[in-house]
Amino acid sequence: MSVEKTIAPVPEATADPPRVLSSELAGHVGERVRVAGWLHRRRILKSVAFAIVRDRAGLSQVVVREPGVLEELTEETVVEWTGTVTANPDAPGGVELTGAVLRLSGEIAEPPPFDLYRPELRATLPTALDNAQVALRHPRKRAPFEIQAAAVRGFREALGGAGFTEVNSPKIVGTSTESGANVFAIDYFGRPAFLAQSPQFYKQTLVGVFERVFEVGPVFRAEPHDTVRHLAEYVSLDVELGFIDSYRDVQAVLESAIRGMLASVTAHAAPAVELLGVDLPVMPERVPSVHFSRALEMVGESAGADDLAPAHERFLGEWAKREHGSDFVYVVGYPMSKRPFYTHPDPERPHYSASFDLLFRGTELVTGGQRLHRYGDYLAALAARGESPEPYEGYLAAFKHGMPPHGGFAIGLERFTGQLTGAANIREVTLFPRDLHRLTP
Amino acid sequence: MSVEKTIAPVPEATADPPRVLSSELAGHVGERVRVAGWLHRRRILKSVAFAIVRDRAGLSQVVVREPGVLEELTEETVVEWTGTVTANPDAPGGVELTGAVLRLSGEIAEPPPFDLYRPELRATLPTALDNAQVALRHPRKRAPFEIQAAAVRGFREALGGAGFTEVNSPKIVGTSTESGANVFAIDYFGRPAFLAQSPQFYKQTLVGVFERVFEVGPVFRAEPHDTVRHLAEYVSLDVELGFIDSYRDVQAVLESAIRGMLASVTAHAAPAVELLGVDLPVMPERVPSVHFSRALEMVGESAGADDLAPAHERFLGEWAKREHGSDFVYVVGYPMSKRPFYTHPDPERPHYSASFDLLFRGTELVTGGQRLHRYGDYLAALAARGESPEPYEGYLAAFKHGMPPHGGFAIGLERFTGQLTGAANIREVTLFPRDLHRLTP
Repeated sequence: MSVEKTIAPVPEATADPPRVLSSELAGHVGERVRVAGWLHRRRILKSVAFAIVRDRAGLSQVVVREPGVLEELTEETVVEWTGTVTANPDAPGGVELTGAVLRLSGEIAEPPPFDLYRPELRATLPTALDNAQVALRHPRKRAPFEIQAAAVRGFREALGGAGFTEVNSPKIVGTSTESGANVFAIDYFGRPAFLAQSPQFYKQTLVGVFERVFEVGPVFRAEPHDTVRHLAEYVSLDVELGFIDSYRDVQAVLESAIRGMLASVTAHAAPAVELLGVDLPVMPERVPSVHFSRALEMVGESAGADDLAPAHERFLGEWAKREHGSDFVYVVGYPMSKRPFYTHPDPERPHYSASFDLLFRGTELVTGGQRLHRYGDYLAALAARGESPEPYEGYLAAFKHGMPPHGGFAIGLERFTGQLTGAANIREVTLFPRDLHRLTP
Repeated sequence: MSVEKTIAPVPEATADPPRVLSSELAGHVGERVRVAGWLHRRRILKSVAFAIVRDRAGLSQVVVREPGVLEELTEETVVEWTGTVTANPDAPGGVELTGAVLRLSGEIAEPPPFDLYRPELRATLPTALDNAQVALRHPRKRAPFEIQAAAVRGFREALGGAGFTEVNSPKIVGTSTESGANVFAIDYFGRPAFLAQSPQFYKQTLVGVFERVFEVGPVFRAEPHDTVRHLAEYVSLDVELGFIDSYRDVQAVLESAIRGMLASVTAHAAPAVELLGVDLPVMPERVPSVHFSRALEMVGESAGADDLAPAHERFLGEWAKREHGSDFVYVVGYPMSKRPFYTHPDPERPHYSASFDLLFRGTELVTGGQRLHRYGDYLAALAARGESPEPYEGYLAAFKHGMPPHGGFAIGLERFTGQLTGAANIREVTLFPRDLHRLTP
């Protein structure tokens, strides 16, 4: 690369001034500092040129006195400029680097297949996903993941502070019992095995050990659906706790977890929230709650219906916003027939379950509830569904040897981020999505 | 179950006093409280009986005036006693519950296949693993996982505070390129796919997006080895950071991460540390470091050797302890021939790598180093190994479009916990291990 030769590198021996991030530059006016990042954009005028450098914190402007130097560089080349921080009200952030000396630590980059410096990435979603390594560098593409990381951090902090132990359950499992279909099969040393669809059985088992557990990890669904809401692999935030009086104790933990997530997003991802114009909700002190049977009446469905349609959920979301000023609303007591066999019935009305969905702005975000905890109840529940207890042996052992009343919930991380940021497609909030068609990059 | 009928349940309407954990009981002397947990042990005397109740925080003693009640219960039955906290210097923790009324929320448990109340679990490792659902309830079996959870918490806090973004890379991948053999194959919607052996390629790619990333997640190795150190699935703590000057910047992050882990274990898992008698190490201000070529001399190996044997590592560990009072020692500059293709050579002596192992008490704990960052260097490195760049296309795209000097490391979580707690077998520090023979529970 000829440019590497024409631009004399600063000798290693020179004591480099410290690297300063773009977001901190304004605090260093008059100092000689080093700015390092990717060449985000070049603006070449007749007698002067401006380089916009992108680092993890934002953008900085560098005044380049020899426009020829910038002409030889390309966008995305990794650059380091050492110069003096100078106030300039017209520059981004009110400062720019002047008297700057360039150092290159690598090659001249091949320009990406789309311009990363435009306010919006002009690429279709498939193109962006095919080129995720580079597309994710666009500030608006990266922002959801900063929000996501902050949300998980808040989730962990809230639960860690409430006596929960984080656990890691195996992702390779011996049986495909939990939901039968839609599992990925593995060749496990010549034996059949499967990828776990959820840590449900393990987290319940571990209530017997730690009382309160959570796990953040991948789950795998061989979903043959090609929709904007389905992924073959996603991250599940799973919680389970023992010694509850009812599903309302589970809801209380869920609400504090979501409060923690939202507070952490505000604290740790404020620039991303601002860039995307995200309207962060507030988890109200008292979340409105509608029983399933009442929800059917409200949406005008017949009393015998056993599920709510997406349009019904939107209606309930609007009702909660209008009547209670809340972005969140519970639907409790879905019919037992629509819930997994480990669901605890409502003690008063056993046709309905002691479980709930939490809707966020009219879309289901979380499913949770109380589980059966008596061994005999499990045997009865499986028998009622015509299932043999045998494949569940390891799971059932936990109940045979004493389990407290317990319950829990699961939040799909990508759905949470997607609903929060208003993403049209869940793939926009997944770094490297896996679906029916996509296995790379 | 007849016992359920003979023991009158406390009516729901009675206002229950709050549940108090065993560890907090001593602060409630004279108060009426509720103790809930598992019946850990029964001591039945002529005119009085004692119930030891285990909860997530420890053990409590309950005085039971009708020994007959305890005779009908079994160990591991979930119990709740409401009574008065009374000082008794002979009771564990100096307090016991008197005037206690029992409530059962479930059935009488089937006694486990081993006694959980003995100081040590009297079961072979295979038996304990076959019955992990119950064996993990033993305080000494549970303790390593409390230490593990605290360590991961400290890892995250240290990195979160240093500008790192937590990411989630896919575990289902399209190629088995990174290390070729020992991958698990999946049927992915009729196409072949594989379980990721490490997030290496993704974390490097994401340095181009976030500069500093970490991931805590499962990795999968189809290891045909049946040893005390190998698992088919384990948790990897992965870190990668850009804009480094050398591998020493990576070491600095590693050291602060381990300091954070150890501090968090002290802060959040002190009872487990005490129970197991764990001697927590201190990460010294300056970790001793030995170049690979010098290490060969020290252990009396010929200069042409390209690896260190476990006995050599133990020797170096003892040397570091004796000469520097350190439980940790680096070996830097392993020959390039023993490192993966993405390893950066030592700029001064390119036969050696700019990478390191961190030994902890004489055993390898962490591998890390600087990576190649120039696209041209990757093409050359692959060509030198006779490999086509084609299967690496997605990965190489990140370098083609500009990547800074970077490096990182990976810590095997179970190995960390195992070495810290002195476990003889890595399966003792894995909740539900997966290996050549074990796929359940």
